[in-house]
Amino acid sequence: VLGLEAVLANGEVYSALTPLKKDNRGFDLKQLFIGSEGTLGLVTAATLRLLPALAERRVIWAGVESIQAARRLLVHCETAVGGALEGFEVVPDGSLQAVFDYAPDMRHPLEASHPWYALIEVVADAAEADSLGERVEAMLGEAFEAGLLDDAVIAANETQAEAFWGLRETVPMAERTKGPAKQHDISVPVESMPDFVTEASGTLEAAFPGCEAVAFGHLGDGNVHFHIMAPAGVDGPAWEAGDGKKITAMVHDLVTQWGGSISAEHGIGQLKVDELARLADPAALTLLRAVKAALDPQGLLNPGKLVP
Amino acid sequence: VLGLEAVLANGEVYSALTPLKKDNRGFDLKQLFIGSEGTLGLVTAATLRLLPALAERRVIWAGVESIQAARRLLVHCETAVGGALEGFEVVPDGSLQAVFDYAPDMRHPLEASHPWYALIEVVADAAEADSLGERVEAMLGEAFEAGLLDDAVIAANETQAEAFWGLRETVPMAERTKGPAKQHDISVPVESMPDFVTEASGTLEAAFPGCEAVAFGHLGDGNVHFHIMAPAGVDGPAWEAGDGKKITAMVHDLVTQWGGSISAEHGIGQLKVDELARLADPAALTLLRAVKAALDPQGLLNPGKLVP
Repeated sequence: VLGLEAVLANGEVYSALTPLKKDNRGFDLKQLFIGSEGTLGLVTAATLRLLPALAERRVIWAGVESIQAARRLLVHCETAVGGALEGFEVVPDGSLQAVFDYAPDMRHPLEASHPWYALIEVVADAAEADSLGERVEAMLGEAFEAGLLDDAVIAANETQAEAFWGLRETVPMAERTKGPAKQHDISVPVESMPDFVTEASGTLEAAFPGCEAVAFGHLGDGNVHFHIMAPAGVDGPAWEAGDGKKITAMVHDLVTQWGGSISAEHGIGQLKVDELARLADPAALTLLRAVKAALDPQGLLNPGKLVP
Repeated sequence: VLGLEAVLANGEVYSALTPLKKDNRGFDLKQLFIGSEGTLGLVTAATLRLLPALAERRVIWAGVESIQAARRLLVHCETAVGGALEGFEVVPDGSLQAVFDYAPDMRHPLEASHPWYALIEVVADAAEADSLGERVEAMLGEAFEAGLLDDAVIAANETQAEAFWGLRETVPMAERTKGPAKQHDISVPVESMPDFVTEASGTLEAAFPGCEAVAFGHLGDGNVHFHIMAPAGVDGPAWEAGDGKKITAMVHDLVTQWGGSISAEHGIGQLKVDELARLADPAALTLLRAVKAALDPQGLLNPGKLVP
């Protein structure tokens, strides 16, 4: 976001649409509006930076023995191709099996099952498109030699690349059909995510017997969708109102202990405003409330959201 | 900046040092402190992202016919090598001559003089180091063929690369020895900078006969150092207090008309706080004052700076 225009609670229009690469007239005022969910002003226009279209991509489906192994493979790929690593997603074998149960015409990319899978996308702009295949093969060859993956296949064409992404994108729907679950949109520091998933899954499954923890998603960004599936045969709404609420509180407690966020992608809104009040750094709440009171003293803008 | 710790005016400590790649718990609170010049809190720690060391660079000194031509060359280089373009500086011939007057042992990189020069640096990390020379030669070859530059030389080694940068870095000192001048740290949108320099130079030299406008610096970032040299023979302090003040006001008026910033790099402090009050978007001043009053109601933190 290079520039913004926003209407303030007092009716003034903040206008900063002209993009400047360097500007040091104090702190960056437009950051007040980005992510504030309409609580500080109404954004009416924005200037965005555009990037050249990508010319080429390679999509890889790799089998690894654990989410820790997936993390080691991620670090290797980052070192090998740097910013060209566009995506690194993880899927546990249970979720892939759920996809095949839900969509029987989908095909397993590898000959055998592995405990975890990594979906890797590497991209190139026009200037680097010619050498992309070579660089990706070198990256995977070194990973094999270093024992960082058990098996992998590079999509032979765009149809196959889309099919690999289709497996990943079908996971949420396939998981939902398995029964009631509490879903959590969380992040922790990228390097902590594998151990967080292992430890939090163990803690939750011990505290709520019969539940199953499932994590999948954006390992490269340090955030995953962390689902806790209800025990078989429970009544969905009753479970969600009872154990489900306790489970979410425990997930949020654990995330906070690991220095993470209870909202990686989807914001606070009204759903998480009480949890934000319960778990946020007290000084962060001071700042949030002070800025809200200063810019919207009458509480006109999106009341009840974000600011506890 | 991935994380910050800051002491607030009420003594609370805002602690957000843990880096999270994705976090959507409202707007980004740490942005309140970045660039606020200590007026909203005392920053006591920060988490910074580190980048791999660069393995290789190529430094080029190119002659072009105008600052507009330099801009066309910049766009060509950005297209050719993308993010590998680490620096693109412009120096007018008059400033290069001032460097030779000031430091007679320095050498002109080209055989003849040109109206403007571009100092270009292209970099590579270890993975791309081998092909850097080839890519830079292709970039310059295409520029020659397209008539985007008149002459250019690639530094043969690090010593020569340092010598090219030495010319650029000696400009401020060489210009200062020529006599009194008003210096301005300004930015406008990157694509407007050449026309801004041409038009603002003409306007100022017409309004203040005998003065000379000199612009040099970071064309790739849309900001230049814009100096207005006093007429020969004037008394420095008297000129600075009289015409010098009017010149600065006119520069700031012009920058504001072009949608730019009166402080590209060096902040507002107390030197520019009155000019900020005179020229900033009124709603921006509302936001600045409201946030300051909310976070530091007693005005304890760096009083008199930044907030008019």
